[in-house]
Amino acid sequence: MSATFGVNTELSRCVLRLIGPSDHSPSPIQRHSTLPRFYNGFLSLSAASENLKVTRRTRISPRLLSMPTNSSSESLTYRDAGVDIDAGSELVRRIAKMAPGIGGFGGLFPLGDSYLVAGTDGVGTKLKLAFETGIHETIGIDLVAMSVNDIVTSGAKPLFFLDYFATSHLDVDLAEKVIKGIVDGCQQSDCALLGGETAEMPDFYADGEYDLSGFAVGIVKRDSVINGNDIVAGDVLVGLPSSGVHSNGFSLVRRVLARSGFSLKDKLPGEDVSLGEALMAPTVIYVKQLLGLISKGGIKGIAHITGGGLTDNIPRVFPKGLGAVIHKNSWEVPTLFKWIQEAGKIEDAEMRRTFNMGIGMVLVVSQEASNRILEGGGGAYKAYHIGEVVSGEGVSYH
Amino acid sequence: MSATFGVNTELSRCVLRLIGPSDHSPSPIQRHSTLPRFYNGFLSLSAASENLKVTRRTRISPRLLSMPTNSSSESLTYRDAGVDIDAGSELVRRIAKMAPGIGGFGGLFPLGDSYLVAGTDGVGTKLKLAFETGIHETIGIDLVAMSVNDIVTSGAKPLFFLDYFATSHLDVDLAEKVIKGIVDGCQQSDCALLGGETAEMPDFYADGEYDLSGFAVGIVKRDSVINGNDIVAGDVLVGLPSSGVHSNGFSLVRRVLARSGFSLKDKLPGEDVSLGEALMAPTVIYVKQLLGLISKGGIKGIAHITGGGLTDNIPRVFPKGLGAVIHKNSWEVPTLFKWIQEAGKIEDAEMRRTFNMGIGMVLVVSQEASNRILEGGGGAYKAYHIGEVVSGEGVSYH
Repeated sequence: MSATFGVNTELSRCVLRLIGPSDHSPSPIQRHSTLPRFYNGFLSLSAASENLKVTRRTRISPRLLSMPTNSSSESLTYRDAGVDIDAGSELVRRIAKMAPGIGGFGGLFPLGDSYLVAGTDGVGTKLKLAFETGIHETIGIDLVAMSVNDIVTSGAKPLFFLDYFATSHLDVDLAEKVIKGIVDGCQQSDCALLGGETAEMPDFYADGEYDLSGFAVGIVKRDSVINGNDIVAGDVLVGLPSSGVHSNGFSLVRRVLARSGFSLKDKLPGEDVSLGEALMAPTVIYVKQLLGLISKGGIKGIAHITGGGLTDNIPRVFPKGLGAVIHKNSWEVPTLFKWIQEAGKIEDAEMRRTFNMGIGMVLVVSQEASNRILEGGGGAYKAYHIGEVVSGEGVSYH
Repeated sequence: MSATFGVNTELSRCVLRLIGPSDHSPSPIQRHSTLPRFYNGFLSLSAASENLKVTRRTRISPRLLSMPTNSSSESLTYRDAGVDIDAGSELVRRIAKMAPGIGGFGGLFPLGDSYLVAGTDGVGTKLKLAFETGIHETIGIDLVAMSVNDIVTSGAKPLFFLDYFATSHLDVDLAEKVIKGIVDGCQQSDCALLGGETAEMPDFYADGEYDLSGFAVGIVKRDSVINGNDIVAGDVLVGLPSSGVHSNGFSLVRRVLARSGFSLKDKLPGEDVSLGEALMAPTVIYVKQLLGLISKGGIKGIAHITGGGLTDNIPRVFPKGLGAVIHKNSWEVPTLFKWIQEAGKIEDAEMRRTFNMGIGMVLVVSQEASNRILEGGGGAYKAYHIGEVVSGEGVSYH
């Protein structure tokens, strides 16, 4: 049965975050020849677009060809057939031909001595769990988190956020809950909710369902951009804890749930919360913490751990020729991930490429800075020394 | 049968553009007591948010309770029952309690001597016609148009755009067509496509369907903001032609089509295009034209004619105590609108409140400036003297 709901890992790697390696060269034009995902079709459009850096994400979820049967003995992976594995990378290639360069976690637009940094994202199929659990109060926090956590990786302070809420029939109580979460997310990231669009689209969404997208804009001085350029072998990887699955990997989560025999109301084994509550825990917004740490210096690169996990997201901030070694026992993997892995019989590598495994943000810092940051502001926050930068490429776990 | 697919006009007026009257006072705080839709819950969040002006749109489409029967003799209006008419205004009221002030066509964020101006919108149920006609190449132009036409009304030059494309299963050919349209729209508005999100969301959308939202950011010097403050009775209303229905009113269009007995492939009577082609004509992007006109001075206010038509959108740029008289024969209403009105037996007032009637943008200008603008740049563009500003309120047609 696994072939009926599988998806190929290559697709996830290619396109879950199709924005590829980050911007390490001073001019995007220089990157064109070596990194085909970077290009600058729009540079001629505007004098201001010198040094423009563009990002395009793709959040690809496997298509459910049929619902998985309960309690299969087969291991759940993203490798099986059932979705066109080349679709995502093909779209990237085609967009690359006609649209601006792609790179980093947020698009950079030069403005005077600063960059405006913009990011957009939705919350993917975590929405389905919101529908199923009835927990709508925090999905707006997830929405804001996805975009502001991206733009803060460049050192940008978020200025404002806008949301798009689409549904087939406006339910005021439901919309109010969702937007209240967005307001909370904006407060947590100290940015203004500058606008939004509520779209009632008959015949688009199932009853009681909706889709969300969000847009954040921040600003950073040009000479303060965090871009990974100064990262060297020997730098330290500092991990900041996640609150759970955050807003990625939910297509796999839903498959695991379907085969596990567990309901969302069942307790997460070993914890005092239901599975639904644990899965719906709002994404941590790292903005204030990161801006505080950045202001003290020593942070060379920041990776927001979303789809692709530690495995795919950490290398995106590295210059060519560098990789990472992760000490896999350097933090406690939360119970929720252990349950998902066990219930889905998912291999370690698959877990690490799909989920954040308890680490939602990774800082690449000098050894000097690492001591200060790992001290955790006198206990004000948790931080883990999870690994080091090494010569080579990719991420290995020891 | 009309009760099965009707919708109340009050809802449309309240919430199709729920952002209400525009910003005429120097500080949003001053507006709080008189205009309940303006408030500033977020002013305390950021020192930069002084003079923040926020916009929230709602694009409310009537819910199809059942499909209309063919060739009914009843007049189609938005007045009948079938949708909770208070939902939209109730949501506004609740958001107003928890989120920032609402006003104008785009949110304004102070930055140094400038404002960043941001807007977000989708294209509503025009998408359904894209699905039915198979015309996907230009819906991206509509998407860009809806946001950039909003922000340029404040005098802001669009800097960049981001899109969100959501579908249940990524069809690369289809996505490429849509994104190509977005690229075209960005080129037409001389802004960069700075990023985007392609979200594959299983079980959210019907096969072959997708939703789109867009987000534009522009910039304008604080002392150059066009805000309607200087508008006086006697000022001239100059209309710029639309290309058709643009991206509003499609829920009514679909009802008219369903009862007309016409197919989208049928010729629009009296024209050499099909109904589908006429309805799918991409929204005009007025950015370059407007920025050119603005640079020459004399433009006091600009109204983007979307949902609510001339009737509801023109007054939004006026100071309190002013209204408009429209000379209804001052431009030729395009054949498409005449066909819609006839096929749907729609009353004049209903048409004018739902559709742009051939005028996509209205400039409020001094008499001196009107001559220069109406001369049309020596024939480079069309412009109509469609009316005047008068003491009073609302819009009347003579």
